[in-house]
Amino acid sequence: MDIRKGKLLYEGKTKKVYPTNDPDQLIIHFKNEIFPSHTGKKETIKNKGAINNTISSLLFQYLESYHIPTHYVDILKPDEILVRKLEIIPMEVKIWNFVTASLSKRFGVQKGTVLACPIIEFHLKNDKLKNPMITIDHACAFGFGDPEEMQNIDRMVRKINAVLKSYFDRRELKLVDLNLEFGRFGNQILIGDEISLDNCRFFKVLDGEIRNKVFLPHEADDVEAAYEELRSRICP
Amino acid sequence: MDIRKGKLLYEGKTKKVYPTNDPDQLIIHFKNEIFPSHTGKKETIKNKGAINNTISSLLFQYLESYHIPTHYVDILKPDEILVRKLEIIPMEVKIWNFVTASLSKRFGVQKGTVLACPIIEFHLKNDKLKNPMITIDHACAFGFGDPEEMQNIDRMVRKINAVLKSYFDRRELKLVDLNLEFGRFGNQILIGDEISLDNCRFFKVLDGEIRNKVFLPHEADDVEAAYEELRSRICP
Repeated sequence: MDIRKGKLLYEGKTKKVYPTNDPDQLIIHFKNEIFPSHTGKKETIKNKGAINNTISSLLFQYLESYHIPTHYVDILKPDEILVRKLEIIPMEVKIWNFVTASLSKRFGVQKGTVLACPIIEFHLKNDKLKNPMITIDHACAFGFGDPEEMQNIDRMVRKINAVLKSYFDRRELKLVDLNLEFGRFGNQILIGDEISLDNCRFFKVLDGEIRNKVFLPHEADDVEAAYEELRSRICP
Repeated sequence: MDIRKGKLLYEGKTKKVYPTNDPDQLIIHFKNEIFPSHTGKKETIKNKGAINNTISSLLFQYLESYHIPTHYVDILKPDEILVRKLEIIPMEVKIWNFVTASLSKRFGVQKGTVLACPIIEFHLKNDKLKNPMITIDHACAFGFGDPEEMQNIDRMVRKINAVLKSYFDRRELKLVDLNLEFGRFGNQILIGDEISLDNCRFFKVLDGEIRNKVFLPHEADDVEAAYEELRSRICP
């Protein structure tokens, strides 16, 4: 079936979402815009949308090869992807392999420290409530989620992190943290959203040594070159 | 062996702790003082120490009858208890059966609502870090605790809550929330601290109806009578 793009359904800070003539599929357009947390001001970065889409699509396909289901269907354009339409689970799953500023502040542990085991946190997606951390108990007590589903996601996330970590290791990047979203498609739980430079952060490895400061491409001296460097490291 | 009280080891807001001539045992003295969170100012309530000690000792013995181990050894005086000396685990375990103000604020759910299932949270005991909530992952990653031990405590806490809930139900009290502390004694994990009016909160049941406002005896019109009322409901 030929895929036809419908009228804009939703526009977020970094993505636009369109319906298609297939009720089970959506088109996501990756924008070139970014809102760095330290300024909050919009910036436009050439090729950023295409780079994030390339990385995300490649990682989705890579995870699928490990039998980890994602919403990925096809790349349509450099900055557009065709995905399965999910019933989004309103939770953000955060994974850390190293101590970042936020963990350091919360737990008084030195930034950059490698964690003895990954930390996984579930956060309710609710800006008004400041996205509070929840456990399976909160989900069960308040109906925020389905406990069995959360247990499934927890297992998926540990596998995703392990697979991605070693993928990035081979490309001289240390996966510091990533944020994932999940959704339901029929009876399946799939990874939704994206896995890109907008929700993964890295330490670079240079000459075999870990530079344990998060490498933020949008804060580099040459922003476009920094995005392109990460793309070329991640996408062989 | 005759127990002899040594010199004051530690004085907290509501308790004093003394060593004994047995290196494995301590004496805890329950003070009459209280520091209500809404004023933070010290108040003295007649018999409060003895009432809390009576309740705590009775509940410890009751839990022991369900094979839930506690640090309780003996009551020495109305306001003094002999306990096993624990290696304290620096975590506070919080349990909720109803939505209190703090949960309501955090999760936007109506105060007083009965929870579909209890919520259990582990918090690191660290005032400087504002006692952050942790999971087994944080404990493992940062060495805050032993994951297997935490899993054990989690199972113990669910049993403790179930046993106490039905104990209080029969006394026309609904257990709203409680905070527990645990410690190691040899190879065993025991409940430490106390289970008293200082760390359990209740709704009263009057004429078969739940009054779903937390009954705080120190805020009652007649504070001493309110403490005595709860003691007489809890201790047959």
